[in-house]
Amino acid sequence: MSDLHPGLASLHLLVGDWRGTGRGEYPTIAPFDYREEVSFSNPPGKPFLAYRQMTWSAVDDRPLHVESGYLRPGERGSWEWVMAQPSGFVEIYAGHLTGRTLMLETTTLARTPTAKKVTHLRRVLTLGEADLVYEVEMEALDHPLQRHLTAQLQRVVKY
Amino acid sequence: MSDLHPGLASLHLLVGDWRGTGRGEYPTIAPFDYREEVSFSNPPGKPFLAYRQMTWSAVDDRPLHVESGYLRPGERGSWEWVMAQPSGFVEIYAGHLTGRTLMLETTTLARTPTAKKVTHLRRVLTLGEADLVYEVEMEALDHPLQRHLTAQLQRVVKY
Repeated sequence: MSDLHPGLASLHLLVGDWRGTGRGEYPTIAPFDYREEVSFSNPPGKPFLAYRQMTWSAVDDRPLHVESGYLRPGERGSWEWVMAQPSGFVEIYAGHLTGRTLMLETTTLARTPTAKKVTHLRRVLTLGEADLVYEVEMEALDHPLQRHLTAQLQRVVKY
Repeated sequence: MSDLHPGLASLHLLVGDWRGTGRGEYPTIAPFDYREEVSFSNPPGKPFLAYRQMTWSAVDDRPLHVESGYLRPGERGSWEWVMAQPSGFVEIYAGHLTGRTLMLETTTLARTPTAKKVTHLRRVLTLGEADLVYEVEMEALDHPLQRHLTAQLQRVVKY
């Protein structure tokens, strides 16, 4: 971890590769379970973390979702997260790390003309040495902000 | 290419890994030359292309830029491109493929509070069997839309 950009030191627990399982739910869909791989990496010398995520169905292993973006220091100790989703969204999040809890909410959520009407997202990540737990709350299709995804990931240890 | 999602057939020339060189310029910076790697891939069964890009200085090989996003079919034969950049931008592009020229312009360009004032981008990609040429025009820092990046990439043939 000694090569981590100094501006990212407070998020050092987040850096790495993660695998685990999660559950999705929303009033408009049947609940579903998924398998997930997540990576937060720091390109050498750069003041940001590159984020990549993939999920697969826990039932039949078909690919479900991918997303990617960048997490970067913002003003006055805040964190900014920019993200693109193949479902036709781009998101800008702002938030703070409090203890081991990183909470971010969308300040911008823009959609292509063919994307579903998602209007607000909140992400809460709980950082640990060996575990990464996250929850995503979503306001969409005129439903109020509520739990959409929860997952428990384990650090992939490299030998 | 037989596994390409049918909705992406008209962009089949774009799919693959690309390497080459480019040049950057703008009124606010000294011109610079770069080395680049680009990937457009179609996750199995998914109606979009995942896009990843990395550049390095042609002078000293230090990492310069990365960006990532997703290109997807839009309404009435159009194409939509959603993208996130670690410099603190998210972009939604809309455009069309005409012959072998894919031209897209930002319909949304949103910035985090700490990002530079980039206000409009236009990307023109010229597709070929063996070559991919692109140009990026940028409106930023109160300068009108003008050439920012040009690059010539060659298809990475896999054995």
